[in-house]
Formats: sequence, structure tokens, C-alpha cells
Amino acid sequence: MTKPELQAYAQSLAQAARRAGRTLAISSGRQRNEAIRAIAEELRARTETLVAENARDVAAAGEMGLSPAMIDRLRLDPARIEKMAKAVAEVANQPDPVGETIEARVRPNGIRVEKRRVPIGVVAIIYESRPNVTSDAAALCLKSGNASILRGGKESLHSNRAIGAAIAAALEKAGLPPEAVQVVATTERELVPLLLHREEEIDLVIPRGGESLIRAVVEQSRIPVIKHYTGNCHVYLHEDCPPELAEPVVLNAKCQRPGVCNAAESLLFHAGCAERLIPLVGKRLIEAGVEIRGCEQTRRLLPEAKPVTEEDYRAEYLDLIISCKVVNSLQEAIDHINAYSSHHTDAILTHDVRAAEAFVAGVDSANVMVNVSTRFSDGGEYGLGAEIGISTDKLHARGPMGAADLTTYKWVVSGYGQLRG
Amino acid sequence: MTKPELQAYAQSLAQAARRAGRTLAISSGRQRNEAIRAIAEELRARTETLVAENARDVAAAGEMGLSPAMIDRLRLDPARIEKMAKAVAEVANQPDPVGETIEARVRPNGIRVEKRRVPIGVVAIIYESRPNVTSDAAALCLKSGNASILRGGKESLHSNRAIGAAIAAALEKAGLPPEAVQVVATTERELVPLLLHREEEIDLVIPRGGESLIRAVVEQSRIPVIKHYTGNCHVYLHEDCPPELAEPVVLNAKCQRPGVCNAAESLLFHAGCAERLIPLVGKRLIEAGVEIRGCEQTRRLLPEAKPVTEEDYRAEYLDLIISCKVVNSLQEAIDHINAYSSHHTDAILTHDVRAAEAFVAGVDSANVMVNVSTRFSDGGEYGLGAEIGISTDKLHARGPMGAADLTTYKWVVSGYGQLRG
Repeated sequence: MTKPELQAYAQSLAQAARRAGRTLAISSGRQRNEAIRAIAEELRARTETLVAENARDVAAAGEMGLSPAMIDRLRLDPARIEKMAKAVAEVANQPDPVGETIEARVRPNGIRVEKRRVPIGVVAIIYESRPNVTSDAAALCLKSGNASILRGGKESLHSNRAIGAAIAAALEKAGLPPEAVQVVATTERELVPLLLHREEEIDLVIPRGGESLIRAVVEQSRIPVIKHYTGNCHVYLHEDCPPELAEPVVLNAKCQRPGVCNAAESLLFHAGCAERLIPLVGKRLIEAGVEIRGCEQTRRLLPEAKPVTEEDYRAEYLDLIISCKVVNSLQEAIDHINAYSSHHTDAILTHDVRAAEAFVAGVDSANVMVNVSTRFSDGGEYGLGAEIGISTDKLHARGPMGAADLTTYKWVVSGYGQLRG
Repeated sequence: MTKPELQAYAQSLAQAARRAGRTLAISSGRQRNEAIRAIAEELRARTETLVAENARDVAAAGEMGLSPAMIDRLRLDPARIEKMAKAVAEVANQPDPVGETIEARVRPNGIRVEKRRVPIGVVAIIYESRPNVTSDAAALCLKSGNASILRGGKESLHSNRAIGAAIAAALEKAGLPPEAVQVVATTERELVPLLLHREEEIDLVIPRGGESLIRAVVEQSRIPVIKHYTGNCHVYLHEDCPPELAEPVVLNAKCQRPGVCNAAESLLFHAGCAERLIPLVGKRLIEAGVEIRGCEQTRRLLPEAKPVTEEDYRAEYLDLIISCKVVNSLQEAIDHINAYSSHHTDAILTHDVRAAEAFVAGVDSANVMVNVSTRFSDGGEYGLGAEIGISTDKLHARGPMGAADLTTYKWVVSGYGQLRG
């Protein structure tokens, strides 16, 4: 597409979304749930087409030289499509986040002031790789009454188009405008900045993907962005931490699923427990195939550890590697975490309630865990239902973000002719 | 200052604020209230200095040719300083927004998941004119546990510096770091974009001032911005609106204080009440000195009205002028408001409950009023206490923003060694 064509396309996407959002804002929760359930049905009914369209993406990905892991994440088969459909249908069963009276009071002059939960309006999601993000995001935005513009990566273009067709059919069945969910039909990179400048029609941008994608979106956007950086998560073992707490929690945090954002990437040991715990925990990690990169004190206690660098302390390995450092105090642990953490999820292991409270208050992260694995940092584990991501921002939504985090509120003030004096 | 000097200054402001913010995050509400009360005392004790420093700004403003209204807003006298001190002291008396458990649940595996209200961290406020914004913003940021960077306009430089010195003395008395509130000591424009790129240390930017200031901040900022555009507020008179509701509410909304953001700038009359109400309401507005700019139908019913233009429908007069339009339906009123309003505050006058509900659901504004004056759109009137502004954004905070809106939350998850399976 030429630049003016792209501009016209961005405009038409944004304006159509704004109009559809107005309709969604006055739709009923029942109608939105019908649309969501219809998406699940359409996905199931179109399994064959989806697999065929996805095969085109997988073939292209092979030619582009994507890694086997990336290609695996891209691939759809009937079992994965059933899983997608099930995840969508579950969103319909969640409570309706829209319409709730968050607070209300009657003022001395008799006016009633109500803070009422309403949809945000139009949400644009810029993402990469897995096609299930398309159906998940569509369902969560519909649930919360928002029109959505879904712009996936070029590697999943055909899959996303086919999922988009299923969604459009479902919206029609439910009597909602097809523009309530728009799957962007081009992967031209130049479209993204054009969308990010349409602040009159688009209310929120959520980038999901690698750090470079997120940084590019933040730099170009005039629309508020909620960022989802991945996690450099710490586990701090306080002076008193008993081995029966340390061993299983560290192992779970590091090894249960090393490739995800809430896996631990860094261990901090209080000097008072280093001798007791580093050899013990270190041995278990090594047995589990983890490479340990440690500070000098770590290496004295665990000769198998490789030397750690400043870069390691900042790294999100997403792999069976962990950095390891001995600190002299709780405060040093807090300071290290605030300096190096990605403010996603950090944990303390201790039976000392004052240490736990100081850690919780001092660590500036979205999720602070006391005596549990960092792996619990997840919308499903928190009981929020499906999540649109884990926000590492502090504004609007922080940590796991569910359908309710895709709402805002309006102030509804009612009376009988009161005047301001 | 040279560019590298400005860069170093921006860095030192931001890093010092981040450090002070960490201290505030673990301070007690009592300590923060002591600091706020000490600010009020210091302002009172320094009345003479404040008046003298302010006189320098007022003299410079006269030389720069600022309007008498602007100069009046700038001027401090002992009565105004007492008012500033009182407003600050009142913030100390508000409930503490920090530390509240917003929600908590125990999950089937026994982990306790708590959403706890905490300070945002570092807030930068970029503003113009009135020196009382400096003390108000300092008090509200302290109340909510945030470090603040306050960058006022060049027209109030000396006043702001003197207020800054009072604040610094108060912080010291209360044992809080002086960098908890930093009043920027230079008015060089080039500093602002440098601050707006320090996303590692500054969490939130609030611009307060004219539209051009706000747009410039939004375009340059990598930090989340909460915008406070002024208001193009509508009053829609529905078909059934009785004259005893129409007349006083419209007069109050337009004339009680025409220069503020929640004053009405636009009237919409349903065609079914135009003949009844336009001559009546129009006459009263004209008697009150209001210039009416109306559509053709308005002018047929009110010959004194001047012709309205497209620009008028978008205008925020902040003056005794109002635009006037006849619409054929409630839906046309909603569509007009959604197209032309600044999404600040819009009102309907009707006794028809279905019309009121449709208006409330359909109008996409921060404040929707039913049968009361738009002038009630205000933190004080809503019972929120002092406000930092009225957000026209939808993310994080919408409408009047009090101390609680300067907080975020963290997820605190605690257990006894649970693992994710």
C-alpha cells in the first residue's frame, strides 16, 4: 500500500472502531456473551480452514528460517483450536465487569454522585507470534464492551485472517457490528505508527511481544500505552530461611517453566544463610540442569558456578540459567531488586514477619511474593479469569490484567435541579 | 544552561526524586501529614518573603505585557497566602489513601492474594500561572506518598522558588528528604522534554494549563501522561424538560462562573421543546449578559441570537457566550456531544428516566449530569477533598482526581511454600 492508502486504512479502522465502540457501550452483557460464545463455536466449526490457513504461515515461517520453538508456537492443530475455543467460551462465563457502581454517595445538597464502571472504548493490541492471542484478545475486549483493533505479526497473517473471519461471523450472528473486532489485514510496518497517532478514536494501546516492539510502540504513541515487559524475577532468601522452604520454592520458580515471564532469573542470599543454603540449593539446581552464574561469595561456596557479570543481573534468560548473589542485609536485597528487577515479580522467603513486611513495602514491583513461587504471578492463579497480559506499568493496571482492567469509569451525577452557589 | 548542564539537571532531579520516593513509600501516614501541616505553617510564617518575591513576578509580568486577568491570578497577598496554607492543611485532614487493601482472597491452594494500594512513585507536574498549584500539588503528592517534581511557568518563577523553600523547610522539620518535593529552579523550556524522557525514574506526568502545553507534553513524553484538557460542556434539554428545571440550571451552568472548565459552552434543545424553551431561556441568558450563537431554528425563535459556526460548536469560550442548537432526537444530541464535546462534563435535563439512562450510557464523557448544573463537576463537590485536576483521560483516573488517584496498587501474594504444579 502507498502511504496515503495506509493512512486511509488507519483512519477507516480507527473510525469504524469508534463507531462500533459506541454500540458496544450500550449493548447488554448477555449480547456480548452470546457473541463470545459464537466465536468459540465458529472456531470449532472452521477447524479445517484454520489448520489449512495456518499451514501457509508455518510453511512461510520455515522459509523465513524461524526457530523450531517459534514455529511450534505458531502451529495450530485441531487440539489447539479446541483449546482456543474453550478459552474463549470461558470468558463468556466470567462475571460482567461493565456497569458496576464502584462507589456512590449522596452529598449534603442532595446530589447523588456515582462512579460507574464503563468500557474504555477502543483498544488496539499490537502483538507477535501465537495466533491464540487474536481470539483471547477479541473475547476479553468484547467482554469488557470495547471495540478492538488487533494487529498481529506477519508470521501469523493467514491464521489471524482466518480467525478474524470466524470472529466476524460470530459478531454478525450475535447482532453486533462486525467492526467491534477488526483484525488488521496487512502486516505493513508503516501502519503501526499511523494507528498510534489516532488518539481521537483509539483510547488504549497494549503491545505484547519483545522489548523492542514495546519500546517502539511507546516512542511512537500519542495514545496511552500499557506496557507488558517480560520479567527479571528475583527470589531473596532471608537470613532465617529454612531449607525446606528454600529448596522446593527456588526449584519451582526456576524450573517449572523456565521460558515464561514469571520464572525466577536471579537469586539473592542473605550472607547469614549463604553457607547453609547456597551449596544445598545450588546442588539441586545443577541436578535440574540449571547453569548458575554467581558472585565471588557464591563461587566460593559453589565451585560449579560460573562468574556473574553486571549484564547477568539484568538478564531475563527465559532459560535454565540463574544469577546468584550474596547480600549483607535485607536493605541491600531490596536496593538490588529495585535497581535490577523489571518490576514484574519478586519474592522473599522468610519466617520473619518484619522482614517480610519490609520487603513487601520496599520492593517496587507489580507482584511481591512471600514464601511462594514467583510462578503464581498469573491472572488465572489470582482468580481473575483470562488475562490480557501482565502489566509492568503502574498506571491504570499493574500485574495480571483481566477483563475488568479494560474498563474505566464515568461519574454519573443526578439530582433535581440543584445549583452551585 | 548548556544542553549537557540541562541534561545533568534533569537527571539529578529525576534520580533524587526516585530515591526520595522510595523513602516516602515506607514512611507513615502520620509523618506525611506532619510534613503537610508544616508546609502550611511555613507558608504562614513566610508571608512577608512570599509577598516580596511574588512582587518581582508581578512586576515582570507587567513588563511582559500579561493581561490584567493573568496578573491578578498570579498575585499573592496575605489573604491569598492564608488561603493557600488552609488548603494545604486540609489535605492533611483527609483520610490516608495509602495502604488500603483494595481486595483480597484466599485461593483453593491456600495462597492469599491481596491487592494493596501504594504510592505511584514519582510524579512530575508541568503547569502554568497560579502559584497555589505549587503548594496544592506538593501537599497532594505527599499525602499519596509520591515524590514530586514541580515545574511551574516562568511568570511565577520567584513565587514558586519561595514556596519551594517553605516546602523544603517543612520536609526537613518532618524528617523527610528535601527531594520529596522538588520545585524546578529554572524555566528553560528545553528542560521539559529532557524530564519527559526519564521514564526510568518518573512514573507519571500531569500537565496543567492550556491545550498547547498539554499537546506538547503528550507528543514529547515517554512517560504516561494524564491529560487535563479544559471543558466544552453541553446542557441538553430533552423534549419534556419543564421550564422550572431549564431556566435555573442553564443559568447556573453558564453564568455562575463562566471562566472555568465546568461552565456550559453549548446548549442543545430537543425540537419538541424548542418553541417553549428557547425564547424563555434565551431571554434570561441575554439579561445575564450572555451572547447567544444559534442555529437557524434557534434564530427563528430568538432573533437576538447571532449565527453559529462549526467552530462555535467546538469552542470553549470561558466567557459569557454560548452556542445553541436544535436537535431532532435524543440520539442526535448524544451524537453531537460525542462529536464536539471535550468529554469533560455534559448534562441532560429531563424527567423521563429512560431518556436520562440512554443519555448517561451513550455520552462518552468523564462526568454525566442528570438534572443538575455542570458546575458540580468538581472534586470538592463530589466529596473527594482537594483535587489535582479534572482528568479528561480515560486511563487510570477520569474526572476529578484526588489524592487516591495518585496511587497505584501492588499484588502481595503470601503463603507457606506453595508450588505451582
